[in-house]
Amino acid sequence: MDTKEEWNHFIETSDTEEQEAIKLFLTSLKAKRENKNLTHIASLLQIKTKRIDDYTLEMEMPNSPLLDNSIGIVHGGLTATLLDTAMGTMASLVPGNKRGAVTVELKVDFINPGVGEKFICRAHVIHNGRQLVRMEGKVSNENGIVIASASGTFFKLSSE
Amino acid sequence: MDTKEEWNHFIETSDTEEQEAIKLFLTSLKAKRENKNLTHIASLLQIKTKRIDDYTLEMEMPNSPLLDNSIGIVHGGLTATLLDTAMGTMASLVPGNKRGAVTVELKVDFINPGVGEKFICRAHVIHNGRQLVRMEGKVSNENGIVIASASGTFFKLSSE
Amino acid sequence: MDTKEEWNHFIETSDTEEQEAIKLFLTSLKAKRENKNLTHIASLLQIKTKRIDDYTLEMEMPNSPLLDNSIGIVHGGLTATLLDTAMGTMASLVPGNKRGAVTVELKVDFINPGVGEKFICRAHVIHNGRQLVRMEGKVSNENGIVIASASGTFFKLSSE
Amino acid sequence: MDTKEEWNHFIETSDTEEQEAIKLFLTSLKAKRENKNLTHIASLLQIKTKRIDDYTLEMEMPNSPLLDNSIGIVHGGLTATLLDTAMGTMASLVPGNKRGAVTVELKVDFINPGVGEKFICRAHVIHNGRQLVRMEGKVSNENGIVIASASGTFFKLSSE
Repeated sequence: MDTKEEWNHFIETSDTEEQEAIKLFLTSLKAKRENKNLTHIASLLQIKTKRIDDYTLEMEMPNSPLLDNSIGIVHGGLTATLLDTAMGTMASLVPGNKRGAVTVELKVDFINPGVGEKFICRAHVIHNGRQLVRMEGKVSNENGIVIASASGTFFKLSSE
Repeated sequence: MDTKEEWNHFIETSDTEEQEAIKLFLTSLKAKRENKNLTHIASLLQIKTKRIDDYTLEMEMPNSPLLDNSIGIVHGGLTATLLDTAMGTMASLVPGNKRGAVTVELKVDFINPGVGEKFICRAHVIHNGRQLVRMEGKVSNENGIVIASASGTFFKLSSE
Repeated sequence: MDTKEEWNHFIETSDTEEQEAIKLFLTSLKAKRENKNLTHIASLLQIKTKRIDDYTLEMEMPNSPLLDNSIGIVHGGLTATLLDTAMGTMASLVPGNKRGAVTVELKVDFINPGVGEKFICRAHVIHNGRQLVRMEGKVSNENGIVIASASGTFFKLSSE
Repeated sequence: MDTKEEWNHFIETSDTEEQEAIKLFLTSLKAKRENKNLTHIASLLQIKTKRIDDYTLEMEMPNSPLLDNSIGIVHGGLTATLLDTAMGTMASLVPGNKRGAVTVELKVDFINPGVGEKFICRAHVIHNGRQLVRMEGKVSNENGIVIASASGTFFKLSSE
């Protein structure tokens, strides 16, 4: 049985929740085909980016079955992934940085349960040093409830 | 065009990297169908668990295109996801805890670039308090190179 | 030779920097005699407290020879002491808390060198939970330059 | 009334706890006079250093009235000071580092109440990078009870 047959068989026998995941995977694959720079995980999480100013950036992630942990709230690791992605992207874009930045360390404080229709992460530069970028981030849902806040240190690749 | 047709069309036009992702998504959906308790993200990351002793647990995650960040190493957020999953699972299983545990805070130190064939996360209980479980975690690759280390605080749901 | 004689001898042979420390120690001992609740370290650091609102408090600490680390800037540990004192005090005073709070964890980000005439620490409650108080803190000098920022988790003693 | 008279008056009217502090201050001033490189705070805390190997160092601090917080256990800020001092000193001494290191960030987990006769801090290098030194630290009392553990990032001054 080849991949196509296997997929067809799985789709035919799928329940509602599985159908939702199947559609999400296809949407994610198509988005990545359109934009090769997108990572699989950013595509799966359907993350959208909005630049606010020179030192601030927002990323938005809709809730989906992919985000669930075992007790029906957003998996803390995916909240951390959203924070790391937004903070790291902003750190890569600070004025004077040309070659990106890698995460040195990240501390995430989980404040309220991760429930909501979408999650908005605001990443802001605290200090743009010669080699280190110090960042803060905050994840809220569509009602403004704070889900998590974070601090992180990023190392500019251009300085290596 | 229905979902099946769309999938068939996408599969027929896919390149090698896409085919790898397509197979991974199918494997993940099948694994979750077999084990309803599995979360989508744990299934996608193909995480396997091994209990070491009362206070220690290991989770293993094979490298895959899903893990890549934009510069060819494992996305820091997914390293954090592996750590949070392993540390949170271990915190939920400490002697005397019956109803699980939620992450209060997690600090991840990224030590070496996330390269390798697989990533092994060891989560260990530092202190099993009445309401809080204090954990440490470490992610290494198959050669024993430390990718990340972490500390975290978890709150026992049974005590709320 | 008794303590008084020893002190007299030390004072007679002291240089200018030592005289400054000697005066500081005496001021600190007198302040603590006036206010038994004061800790030695808060007295030595000459920390003064100002309540801003129900969820915010400020502590101010003048620069002094006691604060110097070996390279002429404020010792990071004492910046952490100021932060822990302010954040812990504020956590002890949240509405509904009667018996104080202990520090669970504290993360301090050192942003700019600790120079200045005085250091002002603002501690603010992020979340006042049933058992945990989540705090943030920031230390600036008299010119508004941020020296350090911090996040911390505190456990209410009243709930044990 | 000059400083000497003030001190004599204070000493004559002092109670037992004050006498202990008075002696401690004098001991500290004398230690610093002997060793100008000592900081006031390291002298006050009576910190002693022992190098274990190329990447590990221990510092020991006796309990004293100076360490007390308001509930009779060691002030968390002073535990953090001991950790920052030991980890920062070790980071300054890594092979290849000539000009010292400054703390970028420090996370302290407080595990057990800070009680005991003395506190031993072991600081160990996790990674000696080109510009960053990644450290871990642990504070135990004389019975081996872990009071606090910590992770921190230090920046080599020689690389600026």
